[in-house]
Amino acid sequence: MESGPCSRPAEPRHCVSGRAGAGLAFPAFPLSAAGAEPGSRIGTVAAVLPAGGCGERMGVRTPKQFCRVLERPLISYTLQAMERVCWIKDIVVTVTGENMEAMRSIIQRYGHKRISLAEAGATRHRSIFNGLKALAEDQPGCELTRPEVVIIHDAVRPFVEEDILLRVVLAAKEHGAAGAIRPLVSTVVSPSADGHLDHSLDRAKHRASEMPQAFHFDVIYEAYQKCSDFDLEFGTECLQLALKYCHRKAKLVEGTPDLWKVTYKQDLCAAEAMIKEKISQEICVVVNTKDEESVGHLLEEVLRNELNCIKVTSTVLDRTSGDIENFIDQCYSFICVNVVSSESRETRKLLSILEESSLPLLYPVVVVLVHCFDFTVVPLAQKMENLVWIRELAKEAKGRNVLLSGVLLNHSQTLKDFSSVSWTLVISNIPD
Amino acid sequence: MESGPCSRPAEPRHCVSGRAGAGLAFPAFPLSAAGAEPGSRIGTVAAVLPAGGCGERMGVRTPKQFCRVLERPLISYTLQAMERVCWIKDIVVTVTGENMEAMRSIIQRYGHKRISLAEAGATRHRSIFNGLKALAEDQPGCELTRPEVVIIHDAVRPFVEEDILLRVVLAAKEHGAAGAIRPLVSTVVSPSADGHLDHSLDRAKHRASEMPQAFHFDVIYEAYQKCSDFDLEFGTECLQLALKYCHRKAKLVEGTPDLWKVTYKQDLCAAEAMIKEKISQEICVVVNTKDEESVGHLLEEVLRNELNCIKVTSTVLDRTSGDIENFIDQCYSFICVNVVSSESRETRKLLSILEESSLPLLYPVVVVLVHCFDFTVVPLAQKMENLVWIRELAKEAKGRNVLLSGVLLNHSQTLKDFSSVSWTLVISNIPD
Repeated sequence: MESGPCSRPAEPRHCVSGRAGAGLAFPAFPLSAAGAEPGSRIGTVAAVLPAGGCGERMGVRTPKQFCRVLERPLISYTLQAMERVCWIKDIVVTVTGENMEAMRSIIQRYGHKRISLAEAGATRHRSIFNGLKALAEDQPGCELTRPEVVIIHDAVRPFVEEDILLRVVLAAKEHGAAGAIRPLVSTVVSPSADGHLDHSLDRAKHRASEMPQAFHFDVIYEAYQKCSDFDLEFGTECLQLALKYCHRKAKLVEGTPDLWKVTYKQDLCAAEAMIKEKISQEICVVVNTKDEESVGHLLEEVLRNELNCIKVTSTVLDRTSGDIENFIDQCYSFICVNVVSSESRETRKLLSILEESSLPLLYPVVVVLVHCFDFTVVPLAQKMENLVWIRELAKEAKGRNVLLSGVLLNHSQTLKDFSSVSWTLVISNIPD
Repeated sequence: MESGPCSRPAEPRHCVSGRAGAGLAFPAFPLSAAGAEPGSRIGTVAAVLPAGGCGERMGVRTPKQFCRVLERPLISYTLQAMERVCWIKDIVVTVTGENMEAMRSIIQRYGHKRISLAEAGATRHRSIFNGLKALAEDQPGCELTRPEVVIIHDAVRPFVEEDILLRVVLAAKEHGAAGAIRPLVSTVVSPSADGHLDHSLDRAKHRASEMPQAFHFDVIYEAYQKCSDFDLEFGTECLQLALKYCHRKAKLVEGTPDLWKVTYKQDLCAAEAMIKEKISQEICVVVNTKDEESVGHLLEEVLRNELNCIKVTSTVLDRTSGDIENFIDQCYSFICVNVVSSESRETRKLLSILEESSLPLLYPVVVVLVHCFDFTVVPLAQKMENLVWIRELAKEAKGRNVLLSGVLLNHSQTLKDFSSVSWTLVISNIPD
């Protein structure tokens, strides 16, 4: 068992549940459902994420958990979803030997916390068993604490929310075992040996067993220790092991549609679209000084009318004002209007605020720089030359998951009416 | 039962299976698998598509079959997928009374053929039964021919291919009933009355029953006629009815992953991404005259190197040459390079070729007009004025599902090296 490069800081940075409700990118901890302090009611909780699959159903060579979604490996989104839940103390990821180095560099690159790595087995059950051993404290070299409750979750279900994790953990604490379920999408049939319909199952009486699941650590660890080789080799369902070997009838907890598992190529497309939607809920218009504030408000108005399903705010990036940081947590899209200056100073300032917020660690942040000019006064070529720094800055920013691009807006005579601007000249600045 | 506005032409326009193999947008009929002429082996085939669902699982008000994907209702893609199969004679769609008018205008707008409409019932089974009655010839006012085999397919499975339709129909002809199946993605569990796990099913011994399914018409019609009110109200599986009431054990046919059913919001995202992928497999570079051919080849080379997973071709839109039409069937993305002319004549010609090809009826076609200019010689404002027609033409074209946009390329001195062009000025021309 190996520790990730950044395991278990005293104060995790991305913890949702420990923070105040306002200004959060994600729903805060549901106090009404679970009392004031979940940690004290739950006891110690750890998680095991089997990530040793080869993704054969995806039809691609890369295992699906390592497939890139918006240029970032899928598993990184799942880890982020788990680690922003404060009360999950350790997260053990099981990875095959050949992917261990790749996994280590993902943890490093995206700054994941509280992650430990264990070697995956040849099957899903063997991988989970290895993850549990890493937490059991009875193995040589184990550095982790044996938890009271352990969550088992798939590396390829990136949209798990704190609410369902908590409900499953509380149910497991009470009943020894619990798992998320969903209604069946298709009827399930049982084929005969010669490939004909033997019988079909009543959809109303069956459910799809999804993830996350959670168990008393002692229950599931005992089940795996007693488990037959046949079950380890051909079984897939942890709830079934707890039932068969420890006689625990798992509590089934209704899950949400976004628990779905990325299995096929179309699921990767869907995951990308869902992530894009999450980061497209809000646009923040940024101007550099108080003097330009009215321009910012005008653009804000136009955008609000044009994109009426999206929240639009505006703020001033002033040296004396710190309030821009209040917007950072909620917003992944920024439009920065520059009426006067062609310099890079303000843009660099915004980029460093964004970076400090650790916002780009979760999803890419889009910053569009709008530079206004009047080409009857300033020649186009000259204006472009003044803005050549955008290209270099965009290259730098991309490495930190900020996608910077520039728009040159020809406003002819007046900037008062953005909606009447007839030609927009877009300078392609995002480097390859 | 009502006939759609364009029902049953003598020679359907979009028929894939009847055409030569080369130049097809979709896989041609698999001759090796099914013999030279499927029609003669299959007998008469019709299809029933229940489209009366309310889409409650989608979490939106619009029933999912009418949700728009790339601005076109989902059901229109499914109808297109069915009607390009020549040997399906009639397609009966069952729609609720309140959506009948909307459905009729979809058929009109997208030029669907061989479609008849029937009123949906309160449940899926009642809707299918109504569709079958429309084909049974024993009902008053019926204008359709009673088929030998009937396909039942979902309106929300748009990616069905001719190959699986044929395999299911041939199996139904032999065994009386047949249906596509897929491996289970999740384990299926049976909950006890108090919401605990009672038992879980062996994944290896079960399959998900998907669509399409097919039946001897007499078998499934008899099953529905004998069917209990309870089954009509609460049942969902047609294969089960054929088994229960006509003792036909359906042949189960392994389907492909793209048979999946659009059920949740993420499925709509996935459908959109899949359609975009289908239309992004190839780019055709078009130049106006033989004189500009070398420029076209240069751009073709650059694109081929930059986008190495996409097929790139080039052609000349010459008055004397008709060979552009050979490219039309395979390609949804066109880049038209204009080195000299700023006129609209050539663009209008290309648009009318595209329209005649009926290509935009299936998916949107993207045409990017690249106009080259040297802003040290021609002022930007003057060049833009010369190209104002693009905006009007784009508005017209959009109504016919062609997305036209313009790019002004500043090439300074030479056009020989496209890859060295440092600034690309994009004119936003697509109207709202």
